[in-house]
Order: sequence, then structure tokens, then C-alpha cells
Amino acid sequence: MSEVIGVLIIGVKGAVATTLISAGLTSSAGLVKQFTLPSEMDPLFQQLDLPTLDMMRFGGWDVASASMKDSLQHHGVVPKTLVDQIDTQLNQVWLSPGVALTPAPIHDELDPKLRIASQFENLRVLVDMLRADIQTFKTEHQADRVVVLDLSSTAPNLASTPCHHSLAEFEQVLDLPVQNALSLNTVHEGMLYAYAAISEGCSCINFTPSKTFDIPALIELAVHNGVPLCGKDGKTGQTLYKTAIAPLLRQRALKVKGWYSTNILGNRDGEVLDHPEHRQTKIDSKRAVLSEILGYDDFDHQVHIHYYKPRGDAKEAWDNIDFEGWFGVPMQMKINWLGSDSILAAPLAVDLVRWMIYFQRRGETGVISSLSSYFKSPIAADTHDFFEQVLHLREEIKKHLKVD
Amino acid sequence: MSEVIGVLIIGVKGAVATTLISAGLTSSAGLVKQFTLPSEMDPLFQQLDLPTLDMMRFGGWDVASASMKDSLQHHGVVPKTLVDQIDTQLNQVWLSPGVALTPAPIHDELDPKLRIASQFENLRVLVDMLRADIQTFKTEHQADRVVVLDLSSTAPNLASTPCHHSLAEFEQVLDLPVQNALSLNTVHEGMLYAYAAISEGCSCINFTPSKTFDIPALIELAVHNGVPLCGKDGKTGQTLYKTAIAPLLRQRALKVKGWYSTNILGNRDGEVLDHPEHRQTKIDSKRAVLSEILGYDDFDHQVHIHYYKPRGDAKEAWDNIDFEGWFGVPMQMKINWLGSDSILAAPLAVDLVRWMIYFQRRGETGVISSLSSYFKSPIAADTHDFFEQVLHLREEIKKHLKVD
Amino acid sequence: MSEVIGVLIIGVKGAVATTLISAGLTSSAGLVKQFTLPSEMDPLFQQLDLPTLDMMRFGGWDVASASMKDSLQHHGVVPKTLVDQIDTQLNQVWLSPGVALTPAPIHDELDPKLRIASQFENLRVLVDMLRADIQTFKTEHQADRVVVLDLSSTAPNLASTPCHHSLAEFEQVLDLPVQNALSLNTVHEGMLYAYAAISEGCSCINFTPSKTFDIPALIELAVHNGVPLCGKDGKTGQTLYKTAIAPLLRQRALKVKGWYSTNILGNRDGEVLDHPEHRQTKIDSKRAVLSEILGYDDFDHQVHIHYYKPRGDAKEAWDNIDFEGWFGVPMQMKINWLGSDSILAAPLAVDLVRWMIYFQRRGETGVISSLSSYFKSPIAADTHDFFEQVLHLREEIKKHLKVD
Amino acid sequence: MSEVIGVLIIGVKGAVATTLISAGLTSSAGLVKQFTLPSEMDPLFQQLDLPTLDMMRFGGWDVASASMKDSLQHHGVVPKTLVDQIDTQLNQVWLSPGVALTPAPIHDELDPKLRIASQFENLRVLVDMLRADIQTFKTEHQADRVVVLDLSSTAPNLASTPCHHSLAEFEQVLDLPVQNALSLNTVHEGMLYAYAAISEGCSCINFTPSKTFDIPALIELAVHNGVPLCGKDGKTGQTLYKTAIAPLLRQRALKVKGWYSTNILGNRDGEVLDHPEHRQTKIDSKRAVLSEILGYDDFDHQVHIHYYKPRGDAKEAWDNIDFEGWFGVPMQMKINWLGSDSILAAPLAVDLVRWMIYFQRRGETGVISSLSSYFKSPIAADTHDFFEQVLHLREEIKKHLKVD
Repeated sequence: MSEVIGVLIIGVKGAVATTLISAGLTSSAGLVKQFTLPSEMDPLFQQLDLPTLDMMRFGGWDVASASMKDSLQHHGVVPKTLVDQIDTQLNQVWLSPGVALTPAPIHDELDPKLRIASQFENLRVLVDMLRADIQTFKTEHQADRVVVLDLSSTAPNLASTPCHHSLAEFEQVLDLPVQNALSLNTVHEGMLYAYAAISEGCSCINFTPSKTFDIPALIELAVHNGVPLCGKDGKTGQTLYKTAIAPLLRQRALKVKGWYSTNILGNRDGEVLDHPEHRQTKIDSKRAVLSEILGYDDFDHQVHIHYYKPRGDAKEAWDNIDFEGWFGVPMQMKINWLGSDSILAAPLAVDLVRWMIYFQRRGETGVISSLSSYFKSPIAADTHDFFEQVLHLREEIKKHLKVD
Repeated sequence: MSEVIGVLIIGVKGAVATTLISAGLTSSAGLVKQFTLPSEMDPLFQQLDLPTLDMMRFGGWDVASASMKDSLQHHGVVPKTLVDQIDTQLNQVWLSPGVALTPAPIHDELDPKLRIASQFENLRVLVDMLRADIQTFKTEHQADRVVVLDLSSTAPNLASTPCHHSLAEFEQVLDLPVQNALSLNTVHEGMLYAYAAISEGCSCINFTPSKTFDIPALIELAVHNGVPLCGKDGKTGQTLYKTAIAPLLRQRALKVKGWYSTNILGNRDGEVLDHPEHRQTKIDSKRAVLSEILGYDDFDHQVHIHYYKPRGDAKEAWDNIDFEGWFGVPMQMKINWLGSDSILAAPLAVDLVRWMIYFQRRGETGVISSLSSYFKSPIAADTHDFFEQVLHLREEIKKHLKVD
Repeated sequence: MSEVIGVLIIGVKGAVATTLISAGLTSSAGLVKQFTLPSEMDPLFQQLDLPTLDMMRFGGWDVASASMKDSLQHHGVVPKTLVDQIDTQLNQVWLSPGVALTPAPIHDELDPKLRIASQFENLRVLVDMLRADIQTFKTEHQADRVVVLDLSSTAPNLASTPCHHSLAEFEQVLDLPVQNALSLNTVHEGMLYAYAAISEGCSCINFTPSKTFDIPALIELAVHNGVPLCGKDGKTGQTLYKTAIAPLLRQRALKVKGWYSTNILGNRDGEVLDHPEHRQTKIDSKRAVLSEILGYDDFDHQVHIHYYKPRGDAKEAWDNIDFEGWFGVPMQMKINWLGSDSILAAPLAVDLVRWMIYFQRRGETGVISSLSSYFKSPIAADTHDFFEQVLHLREEIKKHLKVD
Repeated sequence: MSEVIGVLIIGVKGAVATTLISAGLTSSAGLVKQFTLPSEMDPLFQQLDLPTLDMMRFGGWDVASASMKDSLQHHGVVPKTLVDQIDTQLNQVWLSPGVALTPAPIHDELDPKLRIASQFENLRVLVDMLRADIQTFKTEHQADRVVVLDLSSTAPNLASTPCHHSLAEFEQVLDLPVQNALSLNTVHEGMLYAYAAISEGCSCINFTPSKTFDIPALIELAVHNGVPLCGKDGKTGQTLYKTAIAPLLRQRALKVKGWYSTNILGNRDGEVLDHPEHRQTKIDSKRAVLSEILGYDDFDHQVHIHYYKPRGDAKEAWDNIDFEGWFGVPMQMKINWLGSDSILAAPLAVDLVRWMIYFQRRGETGVISSLSSYFKSPIAADTHDFFEQVLHLREEIKKHLKVD
């Protein structure tokens, strides 16, 4: 099948999004031979006819005014010589101004055309603009399907409210006078994008730790509209290896007494996370994983994140694990990870686009729990153990192949 | 079932053996409540009625003259206060002098009753002594079954020779005049122990990296005598986590460019490994694992082992992994492991005794390849991936449970 | 000279104090041959006839009710077998209940005889009790001189107020009705101890990061009473090596871009530091050192402290240093320190007692700035560079020796 | 003074040499504003009128056939965009083929004009060619002074022989029939370069660990010809910080029990060091430093070097230090260094050129021991302690300034 796949990205000028788009553009231009994807490592998945990077067309929304090229150079992830060679294509990436409910804590110059909620009658108007965007993008690119991919910065934590639990109530909030809606502090930007996308029949990927479509109201809408969803919070670095090391310690009956994790990062993601309420969302997402895997929680688990400028996109993590064996003998394991955040994230995001297309083709709707290995906080999944998560997807696919 | 299980250990005064025996004795004496075993972590295995530590009686051979208690105190692994409380029981551990073909590079005082090959007519005499030992031990302890567990120091590498491939030829060597047999340099002490054990119907565990029963001649004998075998080289530390991290990197399509592993250890094992020909056996065992898991070998894989006195039994490992993502962006992961060698090894050895009893009860013979997760160099196994190895055993057991 | 030196410790039941006292008692009892002191490493200082550990008699104040022996066992620093052998001597350590202005954030059971400020007419009463304690202790031990050593937990930060700048004003606060005095929030417990000690002619050591005698009012009193002082915040671990590494980087013209320091510790000190206002005092003390040494401050310097239970007194630190060379090439240095807090601190504290005696004998008064190498936040010192600090003391002593 | 300083480099196409020359060329061309030198960090030295990078003209010898530009690109240290901008200047660097006694273990294509000893009558002929080179270079560049800087690969160890101890005997070897001279295995290439340089009145810097002018015969010649010398083995990374950390541990009376150092590097230096006899020279140079600083040698000191391709010029080191405090409590410090070998070395080499000019101007001859802080194996120096070494130079210069 050679469908055209539209990929609309929330936060399209961010480090992960621009890395991902550069991969697509340099690949299409024949400048880089290969961008290997995790899903390509498994012979089983090669039978599935998943869409390739070349079949994808990119576009999206952002709150910043910088051009795509300036954003790419600011992030400093993709080699400069390559960026220079995709100048024309970068200019052609489909862009639309983002929506903003409250000013986010970023230092970039904001897009003057930013759609600020308070300037409109109600949130429904914003949703309708986003829906119109999706339709326009789809038509312009003659896309067979469009996937909406959330790569925006982490939002503050949001308490659960009744309107999250009922589609009807959620829609009532959309129709309230805008100041009333905002004062409820119950809806994030991410939920507006998700509502718009699902309404247009687009599958959605939440690569961020924020609460977006993972509320009953929107899952209900997705099931009704025949849309698959997956999330949340891409598992790219520290949590990835933690969910591989913890099962190992459990397997060997080694008792964890403490696990201290710290992260330093200097990209815009880091800057946003330097704000306590945003950081908490992320830390909560990172903390939950260990107890479930180990089967106990009487140990000291700490996760810290610090914005540390010298690093840019080159994230660093350090872990110290204290564990005990027979006779209470204490032992330690320490891990130091020097990863490039966007280089680790972009292939996962592309993979998830492929899987959304696959599952939508098969007619699956709602949260696809078998994609849990991609996420730090998998929705509706029953394990955080990385290798069990990988198995679940394989077993799901094996079942499909038997049926077919 | 409350069988009595005899456990005869080659290298019974070593750090792992004395740790294991102390666990057994302090547990039987009610001094320590619990010695958790890896096999107890899996609910599936709890249905199998595997023998417990309390059902085991210990004995074995050693080349050193020191008492069990002095050996324990020399190793410094088990807390002194506990050692003092099992004085009597330690004196009752069944001991017999070891056999020696060539002087091993150890600095301890040798047992004056050591059975040195050159003092006897042929190797068959040694084998017969070992068989008589097994019979005596079994009778004295009224053991229902005896498992022979090799925890001796690493032997030098041994080239493959025709006598390894045929039981008839192997037995011819046993009957040669002793000097002729030794000059062939084709048989290790470990093979004599294995031959004796298998002849007596005892299952055998090779926890060392040395070549012992993993030659066609002895596997043939084991099958003929209805004996299960497993080995080799217990996977306790650095190789254990390497075989969990490598699958992770492969899963995420991250290309390994180099993996530098170094080990420092200061126990007798370390001292023996300080001799190049012994170290090579160990390094070969540790090196093989990565390429098979990753599916390529165009990277720089180095494994170094250094004897470093200050550490005693507290082994330390340091790994530096260089890997690449999209656009050739280089990343690194570093691991620092501070483990207690014997505390990590002893529970695995006990588990293997339990499994040998289980498989022998079921009538399985020859190498049990489904126990590969316990070993750095699993015999007859098809993968080094730790989590796949764990799965294999579970699937094997699931099959058994369905059949029963 | 074989004077008897009295050492009165504030926080006498803490980990550092009990370690130090155990060294004194086991040394006097001939149980441990040698407790090497930093000042003994320099041949120059061997000419000074500094008092030895054997000449010291210990006593002090604490807020906790536990016995000295229970405290020692709780800290788990000194080997249990030794603790058992100094039972009698521990019982004879001179103890008196501490003073408390506000309840400190500790979890131990408080001494029921704790002298709580609100129960007395004014702070002068507390000071007089402390003065009486010092006199009693001195008489009972027939001490020639008494040194007061502050090893108490870190106090919250205290803003500078006028009463810190004038002895007269400070004394007015002592005489105010107690509630009025407390409501000013201008005096710490440590200042009361210092005032009492200086009034009694005792030299004072502030090993904590808290503000105690380092206010003009008390320095004035010390000069008037002929008392030497030194402080503050013993330089035992992370800051120690930072003040050695930073000069190295400066010497080699390597430009520091970032220095990320984190600490995990699980002793009572850690518990207290887990309270933000206490932690800030400590972090401020640790942060200041780098810019002064490097000569610039356009880099990201972070210091974090986390209470992490599994470690007890075994503090761990991790540093990541980012620096640049020619052509802006980025480089990194990472340091991982596994120290035993009290074992590192106690010898410094003993050394400072020796120096206080030495300087008092010579008639020096006020802050002794040449002892800066012992402190994270040296008072009145002109450098944080560890090796320059060491030089200053040597040069001071060389001058003395020439004069003599 | 605006002298022209000629710098003739042995190994002119190596990573350090090409980095250093690029700094000179880009600085002269105004492409990079600043190349800070260690000697510029000390206000004292700013009074000395040391020559600047701009005053230096570069040339040298090499055994490889590659062009300067290709060499630069191969090493990958200097940013590509800068290399492109100094194309013309790189072509003008004065080059001459090197001399070779025995084939060195390098994999580059050799210069077809390489002066191979066996093709000439005796070694004197080679020396005369080198002297002629120096004269030509000096004339062409109208250099006031020429410094010869040895940046060649590490040579194998060379036993001390009588001809090293007497200039007369050394010169006899130069005049022997070449095969006889070579068969004595007593002279390195580095000695021929040094002999030629000293004979031409050029000061010499040995930045390598090889034995070159550090033999009595050549020091005698240097004194006679009024030539200052300094060496050997630039102290750039691991040994640098070891000689700062060891004094710290001694100062604090912490007893080192073991120090394990390992190095991984992937540049040509690493490739040469992969040959055991060359590696030994380097390891010997790195090993000696600790015992002298600590004042004892009853600890396990290990230094390992491994050629590890993925790293290129980006050297990595890992150290584990075991030390003890009071009551024998064990502690550890671990250091991980990610340095760029050439970026660390080049500024030191330039500094040494400056110092050679300075000391030659002052009429100093023979080994300048006050430059020991620059070297891993300082000749004729009395300490390895980095900060004492730094002090020595300062004190020397202070004396000069007083005299002047």
C-alpha cells in the first residue's frame, strides 16, 4: 500500500519534532540512506506492511514565531550541513499558529498570530479552527490518513474533574463563555487538540506526560469515531533502562533498598521542567514504574530533574541503586547515561505513527494498550516491565497474523 | 516430598561454597529466617515442589588444607557473629581431599592428603576414589539423591581433542599409564569429577567457565545413565546486566559502536584469574554474549579482568558503552557495579540444585538447555538474551504443567 | 607539656561527636594503636608540641535523651566490638541537657531536661546555665583549658540584624523578656553557647554551617577575652575535592561551563537537611567556593542535597563538570565519592582542638583565618583554593618558628 | 620584543601538532579571537614578556605521507569549517621527511622520502640532514630562535647503556657503520633529533614518554651549547588529576589502599600504545607518580591503557581509589574523565615553547626542573605533587623578578 500519511505535530518547532521532520526530509531527498526504526528490528513486524518514513508528510502547530530552520539550528541536534541541504523543503512544512489558554513558561518569542483563548468567544471556536487546519492540511497533501502527534512541552498537573468523565460535560465547557471555561481550570490545550483530532477521525499519539486524551470523555469520543489512541510520555532514556534493570533485580531475588535518579538537561523541555508545577507532572510519570515491577515499595525511590544549561539537548542521567542479597549484604549499581534526547525520541514517534496507521486500518479504537513499551506512563497497560511490554505487542501481532 | 538432597561441592572451601553452606546451616539452625531464591520469585515455579535449602546436606572436595571455619573467615563474606554460631555444624560438613593433575596457581596451603595424579597408576584410580566418596557421602547422610556442584577455580583453556568426542576414547585415556595420560593434556580435573558423578547417577552443575562435562563423551554417558546436566559459568554480575542492556539497545535500534568492560576483584577467584591462561578461559566466556544478541559484530568489544587486592570478594565492574542513533549522533552509557561475588552466586547455585532434582525426577537427561538464564556460557542454548532465557524456562515449565 | 584539655561538644550524641569520643576512649584504653591526624602529616607541625588525643577529656550538651552508647550504635560508624569494650568510659562522659529556642526538626526522643527557652525569664538565664556547666566540667576534669566544639545539626538561615553588630545590643537581647527576645528571631542556640564559652575564656570551633560566633558582636567579645575562634562548616568531602579540582582546571586554562553537584546522605544530618530552610544554609555554604577560585561566574553551578535513607552515615556525592578547551571543544569530568561522613569529619575536629590550644597559648585572639583549609566557609579567609589554604597555615607556622 | 620564533615539531602531522599549528594559523588569520594559555592565568607571569602564538612559525618532520590538511581532517579535532579557511597556510607549513631506525608500528602510508637509517652509511649522516633542515627552516622563516618540540609517538623502552652516559661514546655510535650502530639497540630516533637540535643551539621539549635527550651524554652537550631542555611526557589528563587528588588524600591523612586507573583512547597514539613494548613506556611513566606523593607504596596501584577505536581523539579515563580512615573504615572515590587529548596537550606545548625561549634568553642551560608541572615524568624534579610543582615555577620566577 502506498498511502500518503499526514503527520500533524503539536509543538512542530521543538527539538523532537524538527529532528523527526529532518529525518523525513533528508530521507526523501536521498541525503541519508537509512533511519532505522525500532519496529524494523523485529522480523515479525516486517510482515505488517507498516508505512515508511517516505510516505509521511509533515505539518503542525507551534506557539513560537521562529522559522523551522532557525528552530532546527537552535536545537543543534541535526548536523548543520544537512540542515542547509533541506532549506527549500523546510520552508514548505505546513505550519499553523498554536492555541494557548494560559501563557506557558517559555522564553522564545511567541508567534504574533498565536490563538489566545481569551480573544475568542469560547473554546469551541479554537477547536473549530484546529479542525479546519486538519482538513486543510489533509487536502493540500492529499493525505489518505492524518495522525496527530503531541510533542509539546509538559503542561502543569491537572486535577481530575467531572467534565473529564463525561463527553457531554466536556462539551458543555467548550461552549461556556471563555472566561468561565478558563476559570474552571479543567481543560488543557492538549485536550482541545485531541478533541479536534478525534472529531476529524485522526488517531492521536500523546508523547508528552501531560493529561490530554487520557480522560474518559475523550476516550469515549475516540471509540465512537473509530479512532485509536496511544500514550503517554515517550520512554526514551532513564525510565527505559530502569524498566529493564528492575526486572533483572527482581529475577535474581535482589532486594532494592533505594533508587536515586537524577537528570540534567538543557533544552527547552528542560527549561519548562524547571518550573515546579510542570516538573511534578514529569516526575510523577517517572516515579510510578518501579514498585509495580518489583512488587514492593518499602524502598527509597527518588527522581530529580534539573535544568542545566551546558547540556542543551544532550541529556544526562545518573542513577544509584542500593540493593541487598543474602545475609543483608549491601551492593550497589550506578548508571550514567549520556543520551541525545531528540535522537532517542524521534524514532519512537515515527514508529507510533506507523502503529496508529496499522491499528486504524484494522479497525481498533480507543487506547491501544499493547504499545506500552513506548511509554513511561502507558495508559491502560498492566505492566511497566519493558521486556514484558515488548512481548505483549509481539503476542498481539502474532494473534492478528494467525487470524488473517 | 521431603527427600534428603546431598550436595557435593568441588571447591567446598571456596567463597561461594562456604557462603552457600552457611546459608544452609544458619537456616536449618533457625538463625536466619529467609534466604530468598530466584526461583521463588516466580509464582509459576511455586507449583513445582522444588526441594528447599533445609532438605540439603553439604559436603565436598577441596585442594586446600584450611578448615571450613577458617576458610569462611578468610573470605569475609558471611557476618562473623553468624559464623561463630554454626561452629559445630561446620565441623560436621563432609570433606574429602581433592584430586590434582597439575599444580594449580593458588597460594593457600595445600591439603597434605591431596590426591596428586602422578602418585597413582592411572586416572581411573582417581575416578574410583571419587566414586567411593560419593557412595560414602550418600550412605552417611541417607541422601535420596546427590547433586555434584562444581565451584572450583577456573582451569586453563583446553583444546578440543578426539578423546572428548567419544566415550570409548575418553575411557582409554583413563586407563593409560598416568604419565602418558597427563602428557596428552586432554583431561581436566573437572572431567574426572564429572565422570565419577555421572557414573554414580548424580546430576552435575558446572558453575565454572572450565570445560568439564561439556564434551560429547560425557554427555553421552549422562544420557546413558539418566543424568541431567547444566552449565556453564554462573551469570552473576557484569555479564548478567550486559545481557539485559544489549537487548534493550537492539530493541530501540541503537547501534553499538563499542563496549568496554573491566572487572576488578580480589578474592581467590581473582588471584587465579590473574594467570593469563586461566583468565583467557573466563574472558572468552564473557565476550561471546554480545554479538549474538545484537545481531552484528562490527563493534569494539573488550573485556578485561584484573586482580586487585583491596576488594576481596567485593567485585567491581565498570562498563562504557558507545552507541549511535539517527544522523550518527554518538551517545554513551556507563555502568558501575559493586557486587559481592559470593552473595550473588550462592543463590543461583542453590537454585540449580533444585532444578537438577526437578529435572532428574522428570527423567530428563543430558544438558538441560532451558536453564540458560543462569549461565554466562549456556551449553546448547540458542540465545544469550537474559529475558528470552527466562522465558524459555517458563515455557518449558508451562508445558510440563499442562502435561501433568 | 602535658596539659589536660577539656573538649565540650555541642551535639555530643551526634555521629561525628561520638566517633571522635570513641577514638579518644579507645586510644586511651590502648584498644586501637593509631588515629592519624591531618596535622601529623606535615613534618613542620611536628615541632609545635600540639596536644594529643590522649590528653583530651570529653563532655558536652545534646537535645536527645538517648545514652552515649545507644547513640553510637544508632550511628553505626564505630565497629560494634570496639563500642562494647568502652562501655564504662562512655558512661563517664560528662553530659548536660542542651538549650533549645525553637523545636528543631529531629525525630529522636528529646531529653526531658532539655532547657527550653520559653520556660525561663530571659536568654541570660540559659547563658548562665551554660557558663556554670563549663565551670563544673573544667573543675571535675581538672582541665587546664577547655575548647568548645560545635557539632550540632545545621540551623536555619538567619538574616543579619543590628544586634549582631554590637556587643551591647546583643547583650540587651539576652536581657529582654524571653518572648520578646524570641520574637526578634535574631539569636540562634549556637550564639548562646558561643557567648557562654567566650565569656568563660574558652576557644570555640564552629564545625557547622550555622551562624554562631561569626557576628561582629561575638568576635569583639572574643578579642576582648583573649579567645581564638575558628570556623565554619568542616570541609570533609565534596567541597574538599571541588576546591582541589577547580584550581587544577584554572591552572590549565580550561573554562568551566557547568558544575552539577549532588549529595545523598541518610544520617541525622541528612534528615535535618531535608528541611528546606536548613538545607539552604548548607547549600549556600557549599556553593560559594567555585567562583572565587575560578575567577569568573558565568557558568551553571548547582549543588543539591537529598536525604536518602539507605545510606546512613555513608554519604555519597556525584559531580559532573563540563569544561571547554581551545576551539570550544567540550570535555567532562565526573566524580563519585563514597565517604563516611563522621570518619572524615572527626579527625578534622580533633585537629582544630589542637590548633585552638596552640593559638590560645600563643595569645592569638579572634578568628584564626589561617585555619581556612579545614572549612567550607572559612571566616575572614581570602581564598577557597585548598592548596593555597594549606600553604597559608604553613607560612603562618614558619613565621612563628622563626620568631621563636 | 617581537622576535620570530621557529617551532620545529617531530611528528608534525600528528593530532597534537596539527591542533597546535591550527591554533597558530587561525589566530594569525584573525579567525579565532583567543587561545588562552595556562601561563596566561598567572598574573606573575604576565610580567615576563613571553612570546605569543602569533610570533611562532611552524614546521617539522613526519614519517607519514599524508598532507597537513588530510592529517587534520583524519584527527577530527579542529572544526571542519575552520580547517577549510586555513587551506593556503597549511600548504605553507615547512615539512621535511622524518628519520626512521626501525619500522614503527603505524598503519598510515609512509612518506616515500622517509630517511631510513639502513640506507645510509652511518647515523651521523641522518644527524647532518636534520641539522641542515634546521638551518634551512631558520633561514627561510628568518627566525630569531628555533625550538624543537617532540610530539612523536611513544617509542619502545630502551635499557640504559654506557653510550648514554658519555658524549664521546654517544658520538662514536653515530660514526659506526650503520648496521653495527643499529644492532646495539641503544639509540632512538628521538636522540638523533635532540643531538641535531642541541648542536644547532635549539632548545628542546620532549612531550613524549620516550627516552630522548634525558641521557647524561645529551644533557652534557646541551650545557656545553647553552641550550635549555625540558621534559618529559606532557601531563594532560589522568595523571594530572591524580597528582592533585593524591596530595589531598595525604593532607587529610586518608590511607590509600588501592588505585586502579584505566584509559581508553582511539587515536594514533592509542594505536601505537596497543603494542605492548610501547605501552610499557607509557605505563611506567604514569605509574611512578603516586608513591612519591603519598610517601608509601603498600597499596595496589594499577594503570591500564587500551586502544579502543570508537573514541578517536576523545580519550576516556576511569579511576577507582580505595582509601581508609579511622577505625579502618573503607571509602571510595571514582573519577571518570572525558577529555580531548589534543585539546588538552596543545596549549601545554605552546606554553613550553614560550618557557624555552624565556629560559634561553636568561642563559639557563640543561634541564629546567622548575617546569615539572607540565610533565608526567619530570626530569630532575623533586616532586610529582601538581600544586608544589606549580609553586616551584612561581618561586623561580619571583626570584628572577627580584634579581632583575
